[in-house]
Amino acid sequence: MALWQDYLTKHRSRFITELCDFVRIPSISADPTHKDDVVAAAGWVASRLRAAGAENVSVMPTGGHPCVYGDWLHAGVSQPTILIYGHFDVQPAVPLELWTTPPFDPDIRDEKVFGRGASDDKGGMLIPILSFEAMMKTDGKLPVNIKFIFEGQEEIGSPNMPDFVAENRTLLAADMIFSSDGLQWTADEPNIVVGLKGLSSMELKVTGAKSDLHSGLHGGAVANPLLALSQILAGLKNAEGDILVEGFYKGVQELTDEDRAEIASVPYNEANYMAELGVDALHGEPGYSTRERAWVRPTMDVNGIWGGYQGEGSKTVLPNEARAKITCRLVDGQEPQEVFEAIVSHAKKICPTGVKFSAERLVGSGTPFRVPRNHNASEMVRQVLEEVYGMAPYVTRLGGSIPIISTFLQEIGVHTTMFGFSIGDENLHAPNEFFRLRNFDRGQKAYCRLLEKLAV
Amino acid sequence: MALWQDYLTKHRSRFITELCDFVRIPSISADPTHKDDVVAAAGWVASRLRAAGAENVSVMPTGGHPCVYGDWLHAGVSQPTILIYGHFDVQPAVPLELWTTPPFDPDIRDEKVFGRGASDDKGGMLIPILSFEAMMKTDGKLPVNIKFIFEGQEEIGSPNMPDFVAENRTLLAADMIFSSDGLQWTADEPNIVVGLKGLSSMELKVTGAKSDLHSGLHGGAVANPLLALSQILAGLKNAEGDILVEGFYKGVQELTDEDRAEIASVPYNEANYMAELGVDALHGEPGYSTRERAWVRPTMDVNGIWGGYQGEGSKTVLPNEARAKITCRLVDGQEPQEVFEAIVSHAKKICPTGVKFSAERLVGSGTPFRVPRNHNASEMVRQVLEEVYGMAPYVTRLGGSIPIISTFLQEIGVHTTMFGFSIGDENLHAPNEFFRLRNFDRGQKAYCRLLEKLAV
Repeated sequence: MALWQDYLTKHRSRFITELCDFVRIPSISADPTHKDDVVAAAGWVASRLRAAGAENVSVMPTGGHPCVYGDWLHAGVSQPTILIYGHFDVQPAVPLELWTTPPFDPDIRDEKVFGRGASDDKGGMLIPILSFEAMMKTDGKLPVNIKFIFEGQEEIGSPNMPDFVAENRTLLAADMIFSSDGLQWTADEPNIVVGLKGLSSMELKVTGAKSDLHSGLHGGAVANPLLALSQILAGLKNAEGDILVEGFYKGVQELTDEDRAEIASVPYNEANYMAELGVDALHGEPGYSTRERAWVRPTMDVNGIWGGYQGEGSKTVLPNEARAKITCRLVDGQEPQEVFEAIVSHAKKICPTGVKFSAERLVGSGTPFRVPRNHNASEMVRQVLEEVYGMAPYVTRLGGSIPIISTFLQEIGVHTTMFGFSIGDENLHAPNEFFRLRNFDRGQKAYCRLLEKLAV
Repeated sequence: MALWQDYLTKHRSRFITELCDFVRIPSISADPTHKDDVVAAAGWVASRLRAAGAENVSVMPTGGHPCVYGDWLHAGVSQPTILIYGHFDVQPAVPLELWTTPPFDPDIRDEKVFGRGASDDKGGMLIPILSFEAMMKTDGKLPVNIKFIFEGQEEIGSPNMPDFVAENRTLLAADMIFSSDGLQWTADEPNIVVGLKGLSSMELKVTGAKSDLHSGLHGGAVANPLLALSQILAGLKNAEGDILVEGFYKGVQELTDEDRAEIASVPYNEANYMAELGVDALHGEPGYSTRERAWVRPTMDVNGIWGGYQGEGSKTVLPNEARAKITCRLVDGQEPQEVFEAIVSHAKKICPTGVKFSAERLVGSGTPFRVPRNHNASEMVRQVLEEVYGMAPYVTRLGGSIPIISTFLQEIGVHTTMFGFSIGDENLHAPNEFFRLRNFDRGQKAYCRLLEKLAV
């Protein structure tokens, strides 16, 4: 047995106690009243890094919640430098009454730690720190150079991280990046994510007369902005699911047979998926499977629409303004600003007469990417996970966008390898979040093996 | 000079004082804290009717604010029985700070009475009472049989009046009905309204998954209810303004040359209208003038639309529900329930897969009508107005719906003749409402002449 394995086993109960201590800090980044708690969590992380053996540890200011950095860079220039990412902020815990035990008073039941952030991402980000400690304390050194960067604003969309990463490009420079904010496939099946969608967010506005009008006096005489907005939205995407915006699909690569086979090999039960969502039918772009649409095809969703009277009963008003929010999930080859411009230009073209159309891009943007096949770090992780779980990880993509991953690619020029030890069923953003201790152990082992394997 | 004219002149200042007393009662039907004031106004009206010479005067309960009835039925069976309608409730007076003098402390400036309700409809409904009094006090009798019915809930849509009128069909039975709740064309030009649109109100709902979804995880996989609703609305009416609903135009009569000429003869300045609304272009059903669209063509307006996220910034949600409110303004030949059913059936047909569509009819309904050409009562009013103003009244229609007028037609079987002495510029539902005393005088004279003329 490796020395580090012995260390992990010996200190297991302390590590669990530490995870509980960490969860106990209510570092809710979205809630200004918890601003000091986010700072306290940063302080906790910094101390824990130092205790593990990290150097140059510091809580670093950003325009918002702080980051924590630490490193150990004594493996020599011939060894790779890796950057490990995670976040110590958590989602809000409301509604509190749905929690069996209080969100910030962690409870261990059935080999699971219950508490807000236990799974997302406090458990996840603690794992590589513990693996690092195990190797440092048993061997006095690490086979590779390591940097840690943990943020406190992931749950609010990392608004200050693009600037922070850009300003600290040299400090964070690395040959490989690993994110601890990832998911296994199921309780005992590993997973590695090789693609993320990008994001382009916008708000559309249609205005008519200078004020709301009486629909009896003016109905039929002037255009109705709510109807005009509906017509514009219906003109962006048809009922079959094809996006009609000229230029929207520009740069999007067709799926290869290999892509399709890789996606099809991941277990998926459409009937279960429909039951889970409570729908009678799935719906989307023709010519692609549901998984393909969700994982690798660009999408467009209306996130909100509003205008006029929303109260009880009827009001005979001809409203003068309607708005909609749209987010597009982009794939490799698309660019958020270009997609925004294509939509605006198309909407202007189809906007009916008698109303004015305008649009603004919203904060919430991300560049899509796909990790190249045979990407070195991903290949290593694949091998390690196969070793630890006894099966090869599923290779999946995410329809979601993780801004920090795009930022790393843009600023540091490195694709992040995404894998993790949490599971989608652990109530990540819901009441009664929990983390399975079995995977807390597995994760520590996997990171130790990875650190060993990365040494050339 | 007629004796009644002498009486009107002699008692003019008392009548103005009485109008001020009436305005002083803040009978705001929409505001529950003013419930007793509506009752007080009913009491004031009952007293005033009795003082004028009416019999069988009573404040009658309804499911909501009360009505006031009174009559004088001694002209003999060979003479027609007429019913005069008006309302003693008023609009709310907020925002109070925009009033030059307090809304319920009437002030006379420049031969105008300023105060909430002075024009709509306290001045208007007092006029026929005063004319009735003038004839009763000078002649001891009236040439025709007369009934008065005044309501206290017009400004909230007369919710209890359909039941009230149905239950009191015999009491209210009449050969002709005149509404005092009407408008002149301008300060010195008379107007008679010969058509009202009906109303069919509904709420549409589109639902998708059993809860809101993450647009990154599920976008592209399942239908978006907000987009589906937009597609449905866009399928109900095209960008040109044609309503596409099968069966919607069923029963609608094409305009005759006479109709078009009558409408075209009413003064109208399209540039002014556009400036007033603040629009660059008018918009609506092709093949009809703006006035024709507003007055005699059926219309469909989206009154409200909502679903998903409406807050600041972006939220990457795939919402599970969207709603819209629609009102259709109907013309003679259309029936509210049929129009509702036609829309629902059309919407179901065009609803995309993957979502569920449902609809409910909302309270707020009215049967459209058009007073027939050569309608006896309207012809009389036309002659009287020409006499009093020195010009024939404009013959206009309203795109709006007045529920009580539809109710009278349905329950009593008589078309109401609509004319009045208020003007659209008198801030009817706005701060600084006022009523021109010149037209208070004109109205009293017109009603006396009408009562004389109606006698066979």
